[in-house]
Amino acid sequence: MITVDMALQIVIEKADVIERTDSVGLDSANERILAEDIFSDIDIPPFNKSSMDGYAVISEDLISLPAGLEVIEEIPAGYFPTKKVAKGTASKIMTGAPVSEGADAVVMVENTEDCGNGKVKILYKVKKGDNISIRGEDVKKGEKILSRGVKLRCQEISMLATTGYHKVKVLSRPKVSILATGTELVEPDRFPSFGQIRNSNSYSLFAQCQSAGANPEYLGISVDEETNLRGKIKKGLDSDMLLISGGVSMGDYDFVPSILKEADVDIAFEKVAIKPGKPVLFGTKGKTLIFGMPGNPVSTMIIFELFVKPALKKMSGDTANYSFKGKAILDKDFKRKRAERQEYIPAAINRSGGEIRAVPVDFHGSADMMALTKANGLLLIPIAVDKIDAGEMCDVIWFSAADPSYMPA
Amino acid sequence: MITVDMALQIVIEKADVIERTDSVGLDSANERILAEDIFSDIDIPPFNKSSMDGYAVISEDLISLPAGLEVIEEIPAGYFPTKKVAKGTASKIMTGAPVSEGADAVVMVENTEDCGNGKVKILYKVKKGDNISIRGEDVKKGEKILSRGVKLRCQEISMLATTGYHKVKVLSRPKVSILATGTELVEPDRFPSFGQIRNSNSYSLFAQCQSAGANPEYLGISVDEETNLRGKIKKGLDSDMLLISGGVSMGDYDFVPSILKEADVDIAFEKVAIKPGKPVLFGTKGKTLIFGMPGNPVSTMIIFELFVKPALKKMSGDTANYSFKGKAILDKDFKRKRAERQEYIPAAINRSGGEIRAVPVDFHGSADMMALTKANGLLLIPIAVDKIDAGEMCDVIWFSAADPSYMPA
Repeated sequence: MITVDMALQIVIEKADVIERTDSVGLDSANERILAEDIFSDIDIPPFNKSSMDGYAVISEDLISLPAGLEVIEEIPAGYFPTKKVAKGTASKIMTGAPVSEGADAVVMVENTEDCGNGKVKILYKVKKGDNISIRGEDVKKGEKILSRGVKLRCQEISMLATTGYHKVKVLSRPKVSILATGTELVEPDRFPSFGQIRNSNSYSLFAQCQSAGANPEYLGISVDEETNLRGKIKKGLDSDMLLISGGVSMGDYDFVPSILKEADVDIAFEKVAIKPGKPVLFGTKGKTLIFGMPGNPVSTMIIFELFVKPALKKMSGDTANYSFKGKAILDKDFKRKRAERQEYIPAAINRSGGEIRAVPVDFHGSADMMALTKANGLLLIPIAVDKIDAGEMCDVIWFSAADPSYMPA
Repeated sequence: MITVDMALQIVIEKADVIERTDSVGLDSANERILAEDIFSDIDIPPFNKSSMDGYAVISEDLISLPAGLEVIEEIPAGYFPTKKVAKGTASKIMTGAPVSEGADAVVMVENTEDCGNGKVKILYKVKKGDNISIRGEDVKKGEKILSRGVKLRCQEISMLATTGYHKVKVLSRPKVSILATGTELVEPDRFPSFGQIRNSNSYSLFAQCQSAGANPEYLGISVDEETNLRGKIKKGLDSDMLLISGGVSMGDYDFVPSILKEADVDIAFEKVAIKPGKPVLFGTKGKTLIFGMPGNPVSTMIIFELFVKPALKKMSGDTANYSFKGKAILDKDFKRKRAERQEYIPAAINRSGGEIRAVPVDFHGSADMMALTKANGLLLIPIAVDKIDAGEMCDVIWFSAADPSYMPA
C-alpha cells in the first residue's frame, strides 16, 4: 500500500491547470484567476492631480505666513483649469482635479482661511510638489500592470476598472461531476425505510468543491447495478474530474473499479495507507481525474480534504495556501493496536494564551459525521506511531485558516 | 478626532444581525449561517450496521483459528437479513447493511477465505461488537444536532442531508448599496477625457462585499449635484448598508453630509484619526448603516477593511475570525513628521524560516492602488509613533489568512 504522501504526489502530477477561460464582468471577477496579461491604456494619474481639496499655489509665495493670495478660479473635480497661476495668485481646487499651470503645490483647505472678496489667507507652508500626484507616477501608459495567473482581489479589480477592463478573461473553474453509488441510498427529501440511508456524501462533496473554487455538478444516485453505473460514469468522464462515492471496497457489489477499467481509465492506485479512507481509487482518462471514494461520509470528506482539494487547486491555477498544518499539545492519551496506516482523528483545537491544545472529539468511526460537526480540524497520527501521551506535541490540520486557534507550523 | 478603535466600537455597536432568512437548497447552503435549530428525524445509524464488507459472525465461534463457518445468506447494502446467525454459521454482509440477528461482530472480508460450496474460513479473531455500528450511537432520533447561528461547512451539510433537510433556513446576507459620487467619474468601458477618471471604487467595494459574505448592489455614479445625489441616497437607504465613495471631505462640492442629515441620518462621526481615510463618515438611519468614504481608492479600500467588514460580519451573524493581525520585523526605516493619526502602509510580508519581515511597497499615497496589488497586507503605525527603525518589530495585518506568511499574534 502506498503512503499518503506518495499518493498525493501521484495525484498532483496528474492534475493540470484547466486551459479553458471565461470572460466575466468585474462584478463576477472576485477570487478568479486572471487568464490574460493586463496593460494600462492610460497614465495613472492621467494628469498632475490635486490629492487634496485646497488651493493650487506657487510654493515660493508662502515664505512669510499668513500669505494673502488672490483666487483666480475655482476648479471642481471633473473640470479643468483655464487660468495659469502666477505670483500672488491661487486657484481653488478639489481632490482629483488637474493642477493649474504655474502652480507647484496644493495647500489643504484646512490650512487656509477664505477672506471673501476673492482672497484667501494661507496659514501653513507647503513644499514644491506637496499634495500633487504627478502624471504617470503610479502607472505609465502601456505598462503591464497584472500578469496571467494572478488571483483577483479587490485591489486588482480596482486596477482593471481604472484601466478600462470592464470584462476580463479568467481561468474556468474545474468542472466536477459527483456520483453517489449504493442501492441503500435515498435522497434527503425521502424518509429511509429499513436498511436504507439518506445520501449525504454528494452534498458534502458539493460543498467541498464550492469551497475549493470548483464548479460541481451532481449526477444523482446509481444503484449497485452495472448498466446504470456505466451510463453515469460515462457522463462523468466528460468533466475535468469525476468523484464517485461508494462502490470501491472489496464487496461483491462494488462494480466501480471494473467499469472504470473497461472505460479505459488508467488506475494509479486503489488503496492508500490511510485511516479512514483506505479503499480509495485514483485514476485518469486523458485530462480527467477520477476518484473512487469510500462510501463512509467521514472517509469521503477526509479523502477530499487530503487529495481532491490539492488537485482542484492546481487545476484552478490557484497557488494560495490551502493546507493549514501546525502543532498542538495532545489533550488525551492516544493508543492504537495497528500502526501501519496514517490516521486522521477529528479534533477540537483551541488556543489559550500561547498554548494550542487538540482535544479528540468523541468519534465512532468513519460513518460518524456528527463528530465532525464538533471538530475544527484533524489530529494526524503518522505510520508506526502507536501511542501519543497526553501533553505531547502532535501534528494537526485546521479546516480553515480563519479559525481563531490557527497557528501555522 | 476619534481614534480607529473608538470608531470601530461605535460601528460595531450599531450593527445588528440581519433578521431576514432565506430558504436554500443544500447546493446553496455552503458557508451560510443557519437560522433554525436542526433536529434529527432518525436514529443514526438507523440500525445496527456493518461498518465493513465481510461476514456477520458470533465472536465465540472464533476461539480456535482458522474457523470454518457455513454461509447462510448474503446481505447487500440496501437489503436486509432474513436469517438468524446461529452457532457455526455466518452471513455475508456489505458495508452499511443491517447486521443479522444473532451475530455480535463482523469479520472483514480481507481476513477471510471463501472456500466455495457455502463455506468460509475465518483467519483472524474479532471481539463482540467489532465492525458493528450500534443503532443511534451517533445521534438519537429527536436529538438537536445543529444550532441556529452555526456556519454551515461540508460536515453540517452532510448532517442536514442525513436528517432529511433538503432545504434549510439560513440568515439572509446583508444587502449593501454602493454609490460612487464625482462629476469626474466615468465607467470602466469609457475612455476618460481630460480631467476625468474611471470609477474604480465601486468595483473594488463590490468585491470586498462579496468576500465579506454580503450581497452588493451597484447604484451607479452620481454627479456632484444635489438632486441626483439625493435620489440615489434615498434608494440606498432602503438597504441594510449604504456605501458612498467620494463627496465627504471639506470641498465645496461635497454634498453628501448635508443630504444625509436632511434624510434624518444620525451621523456618529465624520472624521477618524487614520491615514489614509481621515474624512470618513459613519451614520445610521433605523437599522441601516451608512458609510461615507473618501474618494481615493486606497482610503476607501482600507476603510472597508477596518470598519465595514467587521460591521458586515456582525450583521451576517458570522463569528469567524476576519482580522488577521500579527507581528513582523520592519525591513526598512520608517519616519513621519506628524504622528497624530494611526497610519496603514501597504506592505509585502514574507516569511523565511521562523522570521516574518514586512517590506513596505513603493507607495505614492491614497490614490496609488497599483501599490496595493504588490502588497499582501498592511503595516500599522500607531498614534504618537513617528519612527520605527529597520529591524524593529511592528504590527501587521494580512489581507488573507491563507497567505503563506500568515502568523497570528
